[in-house]
Amino acid sequence: MRTLYHHWLNPGCRVVRLALGEKQLDHDLQLEKAWERRTEFLRLNPAAVLPVLVEADDTVVAGHRTVLEYLEEAYPEHPLLPRRPGDRAEVRRLIDWFDHKFSDEVTRNLVGEKVDKRLAGLGQPTSAAIRAGLANINYHLEYVAFLTERRKWLAGDQLSLADLAAAAHLSAIDYLGDVPWVRHPVAKEWYVRIKSRPSFRPMLKDRIIGIAPAAHYGDLDF
Amino acid sequence: MRTLYHHWLNPGCRVVRLALGEKQLDHDLQLEKAWERRTEFLRLNPAAVLPVLVEADDTVVAGHRTVLEYLEEAYPEHPLLPRRPGDRAEVRRLIDWFDHKFSDEVTRNLVGEKVDKRLAGLGQPTSAAIRAGLANINYHLEYVAFLTERRKWLAGDQLSLADLAAAAHLSAIDYLGDVPWVRHPVAKEWYVRIKSRPSFRPMLKDRIIGIAPAAHYGDLDF
Repeated sequence: MRTLYHHWLNPGCRVVRLALGEKQLDHDLQLEKAWERRTEFLRLNPAAVLPVLVEADDTVVAGHRTVLEYLEEAYPEHPLLPRRPGDRAEVRRLIDWFDHKFSDEVTRNLVGEKVDKRLAGLGQPTSAAIRAGLANINYHLEYVAFLTERRKWLAGDQLSLADLAAAAHLSAIDYLGDVPWVRHPVAKEWYVRIKSRPSFRPMLKDRIIGIAPAAHYGDLDF
Repeated sequence: MRTLYHHWLNPGCRVVRLALGEKQLDHDLQLEKAWERRTEFLRLNPAAVLPVLVEADDTVVAGHRTVLEYLEEAYPEHPLLPRRPGDRAEVRRLIDWFDHKFSDEVTRNLVGEKVDKRLAGLGQPTSAAIRAGLANINYHLEYVAFLTERRKWLAGDQLSLADLAAAAHLSAIDYLGDVPWVRHPVAKEWYVRIKSRPSFRPMLKDRIIGIAPAAHYGDLDF
């Protein structure tokens, strides 16, 4: 069986779970506390970074960008990238946007401060960082709205890895109840669509010990 | 004509220049001070990140990972990725290694402190960061040696984007004279091979105003 080493609110792990779901590829989840640097885990990925996918034939694929490209190449059915190189570049530009800009400005300030620090025993959240994250998320939700007013999905007329990357970050923040959906109805309309997909369902049942999800987290009609 | 918006010691820009060279794709270089957030540049890439490639047909491709994947797809001749998905994953794992681990532990501490801060007017270099960079580079050069003792090139028996990514970072640090080649003869043997390639030649003539390169920077017999 295919195994994904993951942690619950890690957006790189979430985007891979969504991609596996869209491609209908069965997999076991193995919870990994990467910060503990377990020897067996370092053997799989010396960079000690999640996620790591291990195939039934023992092929090891480390890092979410690498896993996403690998899944497209190894399992081309249910494509999550368009066909033309220029269109594929637009999808990857948006993955970069969420991996770097959104992550630095929003995810680290919210999930990083409230969850990652606590799990890894790195002290108390910094309130200035949380305030920055809560402010920054608004202009990113405006960007989601800007894109989906011009296109059906974030990178074009087909669902793509760009949508999954955005949803991976936003769903982790939504677990904490920190997405101001009510002020961003256009972005919310896009999120409702992606949240309703079967690939999303397993994630909506996630429960982290000691950190309860927001009341609406698993609710499709929120 | 194809145009690459770049800055001299930015490793993402360097890896794309090397890939364009390996694929023998002519291009103009356009120096961009991304930190100035020029309006016309933000129109090309709202994330304000280098590099950006603009094709003769006005296709815009932003971000080095995206440009590298685009070049493989649009110009499959002179491939820089192997064919099997598992082998491609190993190349991308190593690109990740240099983009994240090497960058955070070495490049930011050396190029970031000595060059980027100065160019962007962000104050003096921090000596503790420089000391950390100079210490950390040693174990990364050992990793390069570990890999090339087992394979001809970093990710396998063919030159790949992994070699170009590693060389992009190391060449920027070598411009500053901060690579302790004499203590790492196996890594040096690999670097001599890649530095001798025609794709490398234009980069060896780079000269940044106000920052002279190390004496051996352009020398193939160093």
